[in-house]
Amino acid sequence: MHIAFIGMGGMGQPMALNLLAAGHELAVWNRSKEPTQEPVARGARACRAPDDVGTADVLISMLADDDVTHSVVVESGALAALKSGAVWINMATVSVAFTQRMAQLCSDRQLRYVAAPVLGRVDVAAAGQLNILAAGEEATLDEVQPLFDVLGKQTWRFGELPEQAAAVKLAANFMLASAIETMGESAALVEAWGVGKGEFLNMMTSTLFSAPAYKNYGAMIAEDRYQPAGFTMKLGLKDVRLAQQAAESRNVPMGIAGVLRDSYLDALAHGDEKLDWAALATVSARRSGQKK
Amino acid sequence: MHIAFIGMGGMGQPMALNLLAAGHELAVWNRSKEPTQEPVARGARACRAPDDVGTADVLISMLADDDVTHSVVVESGALAALKSGAVWINMATVSVAFTQRMAQLCSDRQLRYVAAPVLGRVDVAAAGQLNILAAGEEATLDEVQPLFDVLGKQTWRFGELPEQAAAVKLAANFMLASAIETMGESAALVEAWGVGKGEFLNMMTSTLFSAPAYKNYGAMIAEDRYQPAGFTMKLGLKDVRLAQQAAESRNVPMGIAGVLRDSYLDALAHGDEKLDWAALATVSARRSGQKK
Amino acid sequence: MHIAFIGMGGMGQPMALNLLAAGHELAVWNRSKEPTQEPVARGARACRAPDDVGTADVLISMLADDDVTHSVVVESGALAALKSGAVWINMATVSVAFTQRMAQLCSDRQLRYVAAPVLGRVDVAAAGQLNILAAGEEATLDEVQPLFDVLGKQTWRFGELPEQAAAVKLAANFMLASAIETMGESAALVEAWGVGKGEFLNMMTSTLFSAPAYKNYGAMIAEDRYQPAGFTMKLGLKDVRLAQQAAESRNVPMGIAGVLRDSYLDALAHGDEKLDWAALATVSARRSGQKK
Amino acid sequence: MHIAFIGMGGMGQPMALNLLAAGHELAVWNRSKEPTQEPVARGARACRAPDDVGTADVLISMLADDDVTHSVVVESGALAALKSGAVWINMATVSVAFTQRMAQLCSDRQLRYVAAPVLGRVDVAAAGQLNILAAGEEATLDEVQPLFDVLGKQTWRFGELPEQAAAVKLAANFMLASAIETMGESAALVEAWGVGKGEFLNMMTSTLFSAPAYKNYGAMIAEDRYQPAGFTMKLGLKDVRLAQQAAESRNVPMGIAGVLRDSYLDALAHGDEKLDWAALATVSARRSGQKK
Repeated sequence: MHIAFIGMGGMGQPMALNLLAAGHELAVWNRSKEPTQEPVARGARACRAPDDVGTADVLISMLADDDVTHSVVVESGALAALKSGAVWINMATVSVAFTQRMAQLCSDRQLRYVAAPVLGRVDVAAAGQLNILAAGEEATLDEVQPLFDVLGKQTWRFGELPEQAAAVKLAANFMLASAIETMGESAALVEAWGVGKGEFLNMMTSTLFSAPAYKNYGAMIAEDRYQPAGFTMKLGLKDVRLAQQAAESRNVPMGIAGVLRDSYLDALAHGDEKLDWAALATVSARRSGQKK
Repeated sequence: MHIAFIGMGGMGQPMALNLLAAGHELAVWNRSKEPTQEPVARGARACRAPDDVGTADVLISMLADDDVTHSVVVESGALAALKSGAVWINMATVSVAFTQRMAQLCSDRQLRYVAAPVLGRVDVAAAGQLNILAAGEEATLDEVQPLFDVLGKQTWRFGELPEQAAAVKLAANFMLASAIETMGESAALVEAWGVGKGEFLNMMTSTLFSAPAYKNYGAMIAEDRYQPAGFTMKLGLKDVRLAQQAAESRNVPMGIAGVLRDSYLDALAHGDEKLDWAALATVSARRSGQKK
Repeated sequence: MHIAFIGMGGMGQPMALNLLAAGHELAVWNRSKEPTQEPVARGARACRAPDDVGTADVLISMLADDDVTHSVVVESGALAALKSGAVWINMATVSVAFTQRMAQLCSDRQLRYVAAPVLGRVDVAAAGQLNILAAGEEATLDEVQPLFDVLGKQTWRFGELPEQAAAVKLAANFMLASAIETMGESAALVEAWGVGKGEFLNMMTSTLFSAPAYKNYGAMIAEDRYQPAGFTMKLGLKDVRLAQQAAESRNVPMGIAGVLRDSYLDALAHGDEKLDWAALATVSARRSGQKK
Repeated sequence: MHIAFIGMGGMGQPMALNLLAAGHELAVWNRSKEPTQEPVARGARACRAPDDVGTADVLISMLADDDVTHSVVVESGALAALKSGAVWINMATVSVAFTQRMAQLCSDRQLRYVAAPVLGRVDVAAAGQLNILAAGEEATLDEVQPLFDVLGKQTWRFGELPEQAAAVKLAANFMLASAIETMGESAALVEAWGVGKGEFLNMMTSTLFSAPAYKNYGAMIAEDRYQPAGFTMKLGLKDVRLAQQAAESRNVPMGIAGVLRDSYLDALAHGDEKLDWAALATVSARRSGQKK
């Protein structure tokens, strides 16, 4: 299968390398050139521009957000350069509204659109152990499943409409943000009574909450270790906002999402935009006067 | 060690049976008589009244809340009947303010107070696998540790002040309630986009959130299975309120706690007070018009 | 009518003076003696203790909260000293639960209980221009109406059950706190875009919001003038808590009340407990980084 | 002064008629033709299309939202048809981000942009008694002040940057929505204790809250009178969202705005989108089980 892969960021590059290692023919593009060097060294063709996708059967994009994806894939002409019947797999976290528009656009152009955002950070991507949240026409999903099998350890299908996977991914990130805020509020409560947050979180994440999300973020919160950022506060706010938009367009009130939004804004107003999004947990400490 | 155990409810009775099985001499009391029959059949002495605690070295109480504990242990004369130097281990979930008052009362009467609320439901208590959250003077904790070793699989110590364990327990229940509400809001979001909440929650609790709390409550939410109640909505609200009170007395804002409180009230206003507290997750569905 | 008036605080003393000026026979008591001097100089009898209420037909109390009222009126023996058929008019802001208990207590003792909390600060009390929010048996209200006519410009009756007036008063204070928080959030929003909050609030309180509550608190917020406190932050939080309790016991979710509670706690955690409760408006400024 | 007035809706038409009555030369346009008949009957010229603005010195637009304004004023060519130095006065409620973009666009094209949203509904517009919230270059504001004097009773200037007036208008609508929600929560509280919401709101809006906003909406809430809608729930949500966006782009947490958003969504999910936005007050009644 001829694949064009656009977006060699922290996630995209190791994913592309895995596809190369599995024997796929790959053309790659990235805004800055440096991240394409390793894939090219391992046999990928470097695209001169996004629209130099050649005869790709599948275009995979892994870009920052709606706007960047639109600019690089649509406005640049990459989509227009695809041959009829090709598949665009968007693996980034984008809005449901954007997903709906892109699915329509592909349909209008005799292309097929698959939404396949992922769970997992850079190391998980490198290990080919992502959880892939996919939605699109079943036959198309079957067709690209071999690629998902290279990139992830499991593919979860959520329906025929690409926006369904987008909604699932936003709900997943909402759950993570809520877990972080919840640990932050709990930590502030026990600290106020003289119990170390580390002791508390260690107990919780060793018992009822012994899940990767809690263990990972719980340890960061216990140690106040928010740099380097695996995923920034600014991106955390963006994803909460996208979850709220997805909810708003279907009249779903989400009380905790509103709390998260305000906590993120509080943190950004205090200069924390580049910290890891686990730093959301520091807002309760500051509000309660435990941290200056 | 001579032990008096007051409160043979769903949790208390199996705990008492475990102590008997481990060879401890036990006197038991319960408001209604039926639950004391099995412990008595296994060798416990039945107290005629709470103040018939005899020469107990240790009084363990496992009662519903602050008021019941005060009524049964203090007003009934049980505490006054203890000999000087005896230890009262309160294993129920009570308020930090009540804990502080009881610790002071014991201190005034040459008694020793230990707060040791637990994590785990009835089956876990029966298996002697509770997580015990203890606070009190270190020497006293050392002294009663053999009892904890019978009742639980692990004892976590949180300080010399009994209220520290009370605060930890309330923070733990807050985290559970937040997890339930978070799953409820997420479920409403994905359902609004046509994704089954069961599929979504199965994926989440198989991956990032593969912890007992999420697996257990996630399955109940997925199946709308809220009866029989392991822990009722009414008790859920009570514990959120206690967490808020503990937070308020130390000036800790907890945004999510406010959301939880309102969701519980919404549910109670709709007649759900006897359902399992996982039914908190249905509030988002009702508010978004997905459930009548 | 023989009146005993307990509580010569900022509100109580001018109210007592107005009753004296209207020709009523008055016995007064206050924990500290100084505030009773002026009423005594104008003809009031000084009680030696709360239970020295003599032959009073009516006992009026104006005390800080539930606990002080219980201590001074009930525990001290004042209530027990009243003759059968006497009326206790509680004009303070207390909880609905306390109001219910006091009404029951009076009923048990052949006394009559009237709840009559007021709207208006010290200067309004001095001018006899209070708005009196009354509830109790209609015949009793008719009987004491002449006293209300001296103390206030208007009496609003809200039912036969004293707790109804208590609930109304708590709802009124909730509306005030919400107005303050709303102005605080709005002020932070416009300031963030370079518009002076004073200009904004002046416009709003000159047009759609030209009400005493907004003009008064709007001016304080515009000028950051929170001292001397007419009503402290600590009392503001107390009243929001009482409103939440009144709501909780009837299963009424109040989303804004939750926001208010957290804002108060945030302010108290930053040392503002003695400021006027209008300082609630500063929390949004601090959270958004506009104020250090 | 030659004026082109685009948007003959409920607000725009009476405003245009007032300008005609004051002797101004007017060209009018509206998507549907009927609303232009009365202005034309009174001497206005009917534009064939938005770009038929002729030699207008001033273009006034009063359109539904960002998108309609962009479509009718920018995409249609109206703006491009204006002569250099002309002034575009946008009197609608639009986002701050859109306001910034339009101001830049005008600046690029040697046009001048004034933001002048208004407070007041249709009857106030007809009476020429609007409050006009203006921002733009001072000299330009001076130049168009005579028009504002015809349309409103007072013009409030908030700075040289048009977005400042946009932010003020959104803050004003936020304050209105908060007042409605606050009355709704209070009404649910007192009703839960058996006090009629009408009695309560009448007292409040006759005393501390005797402002037009409270009297107007308080009466609607007291009577459950939400039709015909002066301003719909859907538009209410839109404006809260715009306030949240304006706040988010400057890192301002607004706790009450989050509550409002969820209340609106709850109402829309229950089919109330066409009711007057005062129907926000019914959400608390429904959540507390007082209304089915």
